[in-house]
Amino acid sequence: MNAETIPHWLEKRVELTPERVAIHTQENSITFRELRKQSMCMVGKLASLGVKKGSHVAIYANNSLDFVRFVHAISYIGAVAVFLNTRLTQKEIRFQLEDAKCELVIYEQNLSPIIEPLGQEMPIRVHSFKDVSKQLEAPFKAQQEVRLDDIYTILYTSGTTGNPKGVMLTYGNHWWSAVSSALNLGLSEEDQWLATLPLFHVGGLSLLFKNVIYGMPITLLTSFDEQEIHKAIMEKGVTIVSVVSVMLKRLLSQLDAGETYPTSFRCMLLGGGPAPKPLLEEAASKHVPVIQTYGMTETSSQIVTLSAQDALRKIGSAGKPLFPAQLNIINDQQNTKDQSIGEIVVKGPMVTSGYYKRPETNEYTIKDEWLYTGDLGYVDDEGFLYVVDRRKDLIISGGENIYPAEIEEVLAGLDSIKEVGVIGQEDDRWGEVPVAFVVFHEGVSLSTEEILSYCARSLAKYKIPKMIYFEDHLPRNASNKLLRRDLAKWLKQRGEME
Amino acid sequence: MNAETIPHWLEKRVELTPERVAIHTQENSITFRELRKQSMCMVGKLASLGVKKGSHVAIYANNSLDFVRFVHAISYIGAVAVFLNTRLTQKEIRFQLEDAKCELVIYEQNLSPIIEPLGQEMPIRVHSFKDVSKQLEAPFKAQQEVRLDDIYTILYTSGTTGNPKGVMLTYGNHWWSAVSSALNLGLSEEDQWLATLPLFHVGGLSLLFKNVIYGMPITLLTSFDEQEIHKAIMEKGVTIVSVVSVMLKRLLSQLDAGETYPTSFRCMLLGGGPAPKPLLEEAASKHVPVIQTYGMTETSSQIVTLSAQDALRKIGSAGKPLFPAQLNIINDQQNTKDQSIGEIVVKGPMVTSGYYKRPETNEYTIKDEWLYTGDLGYVDDEGFLYVVDRRKDLIISGGENIYPAEIEEVLAGLDSIKEVGVIGQEDDRWGEVPVAFVVFHEGVSLSTEEILSYCARSLAKYKIPKMIYFEDHLPRNASNKLLRRDLAKWLKQRGEME
Repeated sequence: MNAETIPHWLEKRVELTPERVAIHTQENSITFRELRKQSMCMVGKLASLGVKKGSHVAIYANNSLDFVRFVHAISYIGAVAVFLNTRLTQKEIRFQLEDAKCELVIYEQNLSPIIEPLGQEMPIRVHSFKDVSKQLEAPFKAQQEVRLDDIYTILYTSGTTGNPKGVMLTYGNHWWSAVSSALNLGLSEEDQWLATLPLFHVGGLSLLFKNVIYGMPITLLTSFDEQEIHKAIMEKGVTIVSVVSVMLKRLLSQLDAGETYPTSFRCMLLGGGPAPKPLLEEAASKHVPVIQTYGMTETSSQIVTLSAQDALRKIGSAGKPLFPAQLNIINDQQNTKDQSIGEIVVKGPMVTSGYYKRPETNEYTIKDEWLYTGDLGYVDDEGFLYVVDRRKDLIISGGENIYPAEIEEVLAGLDSIKEVGVIGQEDDRWGEVPVAFVVFHEGVSLSTEEILSYCARSLAKYKIPKMIYFEDHLPRNASNKLLRRDLAKWLKQRGEME
Repeated sequence: MNAETIPHWLEKRVELTPERVAIHTQENSITFRELRKQSMCMVGKLASLGVKKGSHVAIYANNSLDFVRFVHAISYIGAVAVFLNTRLTQKEIRFQLEDAKCELVIYEQNLSPIIEPLGQEMPIRVHSFKDVSKQLEAPFKAQQEVRLDDIYTILYTSGTTGNPKGVMLTYGNHWWSAVSSALNLGLSEEDQWLATLPLFHVGGLSLLFKNVIYGMPITLLTSFDEQEIHKAIMEKGVTIVSVVSVMLKRLLSQLDAGETYPTSFRCMLLGGGPAPKPLLEEAASKHVPVIQTYGMTETSSQIVTLSAQDALRKIGSAGKPLFPAQLNIINDQQNTKDQSIGEIVVKGPMVTSGYYKRPETNEYTIKDEWLYTGDLGYVDDEGFLYVVDRRKDLIISGGENIYPAEIEEVLAGLDSIKEVGVIGQEDDRWGEVPVAFVVFHEGVSLSTEEILSYCARSLAKYKIPKMIYFEDHLPRNASNKLLRRDLAKWLKQRGEME
């Protein structure tokens, strides 16, 4: 059997339910027929800019209808979409554009100060949505089918070492992700999913595919606004919202004493990192149906999810692997059977086939179709996963992943700094924030301000350490490896002293 | 990418929801955990009978829990299940067993008079469920995964010419069928599907896969009993029932004036042939939510289905192709675009890759992944399919497909008969029944009784002509081809004369 070929998703959706509302925005609502028309219009304009089957085209924008049209236009053309986090610095963006071999960047007008200079310096063309809209449409024979094996998207994710890597996801990965979620959560004609997560992350992006595959309206918000979301739940028929912990916390604070969500609201899908148990208990006490999930870019969003029926009984668990997915806990290269803690490895048709141009990383990350996540966890006697530690040293701040290694590399670029170690510090608002411990070379030093302003040139704002601690040495083991766990102890001691 | 490998369906279902009820029968209910245990027990017993990966094993039984266990046991072993229609004659069964290269037949005790003699005559082993249950369990490493490309089932279907052909369906075909149906009908925790169609047909069989993939309880009835079904709908929480026209008619007669089904009942899925418009209108007037479908063994059951929201507006239409499926109407080798009538051709991952050992038939039936159904239909301006004529000359009697050619071949075996033509005659109870027109050689003749008793030796009861008309010639065209359409006219004239 060849790879499956199925109808183009938006095209098929229009065939089935053309007049159903596809997307509600704050301003208006558009049907699937209108969304198709607008996306096809963008196809013609992108074609006139030279985009063709196989082109790598980056999008650099916040949530908007233009973003949605772009995602569908790319699939009509058979190009590959590369998603840029709008919070990155110019330097970080330059790296990803080069690494992903992008020919073109489509961007949102107000991000031009960062992207336009890159268009000057790099062999890449940059066009704002406004530029694009002014193009004449070139004739283009839009794809009527998609091959599940074809790469559709590349999303960058950082790792424990080195530079961010582009996760390649196929149509099949996204398809199976959408279907697997429906098999777990069910599918109702009344469903309406609120998209407030950034579309440039897989959690947000995946809603665009559920939108067309399920024929389910989504409400698209440009950014997280707890009052807006609260209103959408209470008054506008939203039945499912994807959130990360910090969002959930802020949403719960919107509920007045005794107030509950409408019964039609059926799921607060909580992903993007560990959730503090008190938060989950607060949600339960307010009758908010939170369903925890575990997933990552490499798994096209959720791959392990708590079902609604277990949500209350198994607070703190990420649930069980979705129907087509499998989970193992590996300890000393063995599959543990005794509820002991080990590395979480997962397998399934929603799992990436690998990182773009990273054969070596792929070799040790994906073995026999099993993805080694680097996260630690255990499975209880009923088969429920508990994630005890995210990817080694990963800091999750407001749903964004931050790898200490990336910040350490930047800081190590300062001549005065001899040693540096970065860890996460608990934070009421963001869950965690990065903090840095630095040791200077003898006789030199820098102020916190000097260090931070240096960081700001290379690191997205959320990655900049919120505190710099000056030390005369860092904890290391016999092989001279930095012991971040000991740094965490130092941090705790400082907290207790204060 | 290799073919997708996903967890074994029942195994995964037990991992997810072990204590949920899997199957209600008239006698009791069993959970998924119990179903697994019983199926694994059958695995050991089949293994002790020599069944192994790749074995072709036939099942010759009516609906029962044993049937269900068998279907799952086969997939744990990685064998191929061949399904025998229990209404076939010994001769028909012999053909299918030989054609499918079956090593073994597992049968229901009270069908022994037909199958046991075959066990004597043929190089094949036959074992009743009772025999099987007495076996000691051999150790067997059950498959924990299924490969979507592997053949899971072979179901026989007749054609316009020649012998029945075995439709090979893979795990992938059945998987996509189940998922496609869920994307159309939705999926609710309250769902409970009533299985009254024979499990040896694809329409019934497909419910066993939905059962484990959705985690949805099914109610299994051994045969069609309108009172029993009516009670299950009114009192036992059944939300979906698959029916064919004759069943629907009998079910509607159970509704007293003014009586309606509970609001939780959401779908009467109507397949297995054309539905008379008055019947659909009667259902609508009684507020029975009928959803018409079009499909066949080759498409793993439904491939075109009316959605709930269009059911009333488009009475008489079979709907639109399911999300991963495509439909074309071919006329003179061209895809018609103007609502004209032509051959219905379909494509999608639920479509068979071909008939077992029939390379030539496959070549003209499946071209470029498109299945040529032989049925005639048109698509209206909104994209809805109307089936105007089933596979050329196909007679559908109580949901069973009957091909005139098969009956004609049997009758032509009688020395006295010179010419024969078979067509369908309208019938109040069965929709249609076959009738035969025969011409004797000069100077010889046979009585109707003689002809029918001859037929009974070779043809399943439902295929035996309900009437034999004696003629002195049959209508033929210039190339001497039988004109069945003219036979239909003759029949009509006879009706008018009576």
